Amino acid sequence: MDFHRAHSRPVYNFSAGPCMLPRSVLQQASDDLLSWDISAMEMSHRSREFTDISLQAESDLRKLLSIDDRFEVFFFPGGATLQFSAIPYNLAGGVRRKAYYLTTGLWSSQAIKEAGKICDAVEVWDQGTKPQYTTIPDLSKWNIRDVKDAAYFHYCDNETVHGVEFPQGEFPFKEILGDANAHAPYLVCDASSNILTREIDWDRHSVVYGGTQKNVGPAGACITIIRRDLIDRKDLQRADTPVLCDWRQFMNSPAKYHNTPATWSVWVSALNLRHMVKEGGGLHYQKLAEERSRILYDFIDSSNGFYTNPVTPIKYRSRMNVPFFLPTPALDDLFLSKAAQRGLLELRGHKVTGGCRASMYNAMPLEGVHALVEVMKEVKDEWGKKVSYGKEVPKL
Amino acid sequence: MDFHRAHSRPVYNFSAGPCMLPRSVLQQASDDLLSWDISAMEMSHRSREFTDISLQAESDLRKLLSIDDRFEVFFFPGGATLQFSAIPYNLAGGVRRKAYYLTTGLWSSQAIKEAGKICDAVEVWDQGTKPQYTTIPDLSKWNIRDVKDAAYFHYCDNETVHGVEFPQGEFPFKEILGDANAHAPYLVCDASSNILTREIDWDRHSVVYGGTQKNVGPAGACITIIRRDLIDRKDLQRADTPVLCDWRQFMNSPAKYHNTPATWSVWVSALNLRHMVKEGGGLHYQKLAEERSRILYDFIDSSNGFYTNPVTPIKYRSRMNVPFFLPTPALDDLFLSKAAQRGLLELRGHKVTGGCRASMYNAMPLEGVHALVEVMKEVKDEWGKKVSYGKEVPKL
Repeated sequence: MDFHRAHSRPVYNFSAGPCMLPRSVLQQASDDLLSWDISAMEMSHRSREFTDISLQAESDLRKLLSIDDRFEVFFFPGGATLQFSAIPYNLAGGVRRKAYYLTTGLWSSQAIKEAGKICDAVEVWDQGTKPQYTTIPDLSKWNIRDVKDAAYFHYCDNETVHGVEFPQGEFPFKEILGDANAHAPYLVCDASSNILTREIDWDRHSVVYGGTQKNVGPAGACITIIRRDLIDRKDLQRADTPVLCDWRQFMNSPAKYHNTPATWSVWVSALNLRHMVKEGGGLHYQKLAEERSRILYDFIDSSNGFYTNPVTPIKYRSRMNVPFFLPTPALDDLFLSKAAQRGLLELRGHKVTGGCRASMYNAMPLEGVHALVEVMKEVKDEWGKKVSYGKEVPKL
Repeated sequence: MDFHRAHSRPVYNFSAGPCMLPRSVLQQASDDLLSWDISAMEMSHRSREFTDISLQAESDLRKLLSIDDRFEVFFFPGGATLQFSAIPYNLAGGVRRKAYYLTTGLWSSQAIKEAGKICDAVEVWDQGTKPQYTTIPDLSKWNIRDVKDAAYFHYCDNETVHGVEFPQGEFPFKEILGDANAHAPYLVCDASSNILTREIDWDRHSVVYGGTQKNVGPAGACITIIRRDLIDRKDLQRADTPVLCDWRQFMNSPAKYHNTPATWSVWVSALNLRHMVKEGGGLHYQKLAEERSRILYDFIDSSNGFYTNPVTPIKYRSRMNVPFFLPTPALDDLFLSKAAQRGLLELRGHKVTGGCRASMYNAMPLEGVHALVEVMKEVKDEWGKKVSYGKEVPKL
């Protein structure tokens, strides 16, 4: 098996996840593999050393996201997908068996599907059988009449596949939660693809979760931040909760691990979280995300329709995942091929949307975006006059 | 965070898991982290490259375990613990809702506890509230009167904590399964801590599973080998099976991954599986396991009771995990401290048993066992005449 480099550096990995990681983090991980008595890959998860690693990761995460003592931080197994099940098991097993799900893309659709196996999952925005997922509906269209009776309200802050993101602070907290957040419905946020790229309002949220493999580190853990008073609650939890979904069981286990975590994934995440603190913390990455996406969207919008992004209105465009289309699928392929030759990799769109997609997580430097725009410009300059376009936005 | 080596090489890691890995595998992993365009840590699980890695791992695993085409191989998330839930969800959701569990240690006890949330889980051997788990009961004591009505029969081939292992070929296949294995009860084996250390009878077993973190690679995946005709069976599967437990969903996903696997864990497992093929395959590791444990048990048995192993009769002693006790807990501590000074690490017993435990997985060379015995001998020579012992085997 040989994947040695075909390109001269730099190479930019625009994968939607697992994501690129900073060179310095890779370098340290590579060194540590050989220089420790027991590398993090071989380390008992019950050892003092690994407990220290976990504590460091948690501490840096708390710094980066300003997580206060009302919350517990976990590194759960099974990715965000396991939390799709764990959330209803832990929160909707009591008197309130109803949960509201706002579905704005592939991932929130999968979340409600899992919840429907466990509780009464209500769709806030029914788009019928062929949803487009190119916008977030106006609040007037939300089915939230009885939301006050629900156990919780679930939304996905950024949809990785469809490139739809809530603008900062625009979630209608008051309409869903009322004045306080001390009681149900609790607000649950899937932040898998934009965690650690902006502030989270801890006065409003009760559970925030996201896989490590986009903005944090390698795949293998799901960062889940849970309000403490919701963890050991027999009045909310189903009695048949599988142990791997049982927040209480993890809470009561040494270092909050019930079973063996992917120790290496936690270690490299810890390395990268430390790196992120040193680079300037949460605000640095927020600014970087805004700048990266501004450069790319500005270029798309100035391309006279050669490149299009289907999200509308533009305030819902994702800063992390930018789906875009050339005038024809053949030109998408041509562009992808040219980009790959330049070391701009993994730009193909998700199979449900087609086209192209640039995922730009915390480790993507501005240089990567500039390099991307440069190739986009070249392709447009070469093909822009030869093909007909600009009449309509290609449909997702 | 600094875990740089305190010992001069060689260091031997006797951890019960995650386990030590061969130096050459660590070396290649370390090199690959820096020399690829996109390291396995950063690689999309939907990429051609990662699909190739998974195929290679599966192919080598099939070679090492002589797995034939009747079976599918998966690298599931969530460790063996998720399969504790997945097995009853996939097999005991139809007409047959009863499953038999032989509990011979901590792990099979946890398995039946999870199954009990999903189906009617029957304990084959009831040891009461304070089980010792130092033996496997005679077949005459097994509660298997109605086993023919069960959906499946579950056992743990090797108990990591208690050091109890089925002798090769001694499982009473005929009494449980009858003459054929085409129909229920299906035989399900948790081989987490002895997979890849001896042959598996594929004519008898329907599901065999085990986490990667003991004999294969880093933690982060659970190798699960399932008879194909049991995967897409609406007559056996519960309709509310969580997607992460749904074998059919994985089977129908690209490269058999429903969600993002711990790509790095799969890659290093692939490297080590390839290494194991080159070293001589399954038979090599079987012989190594027998030789390692023989050396250690021979020394324990010749120590005049200074060292004791509680498993009885001795044919049930594990080749992988050897719990042992010195005459007093204070001497256990003294021994552990002396061993650690010599680079023999992670020898402390599990918290439920106390004492010491040497876990010797596939990457543990004979030199490690010789070094262990040397320290054991020194401690005995120094303390054997100063303390009273040999009167009874310390209780687990």
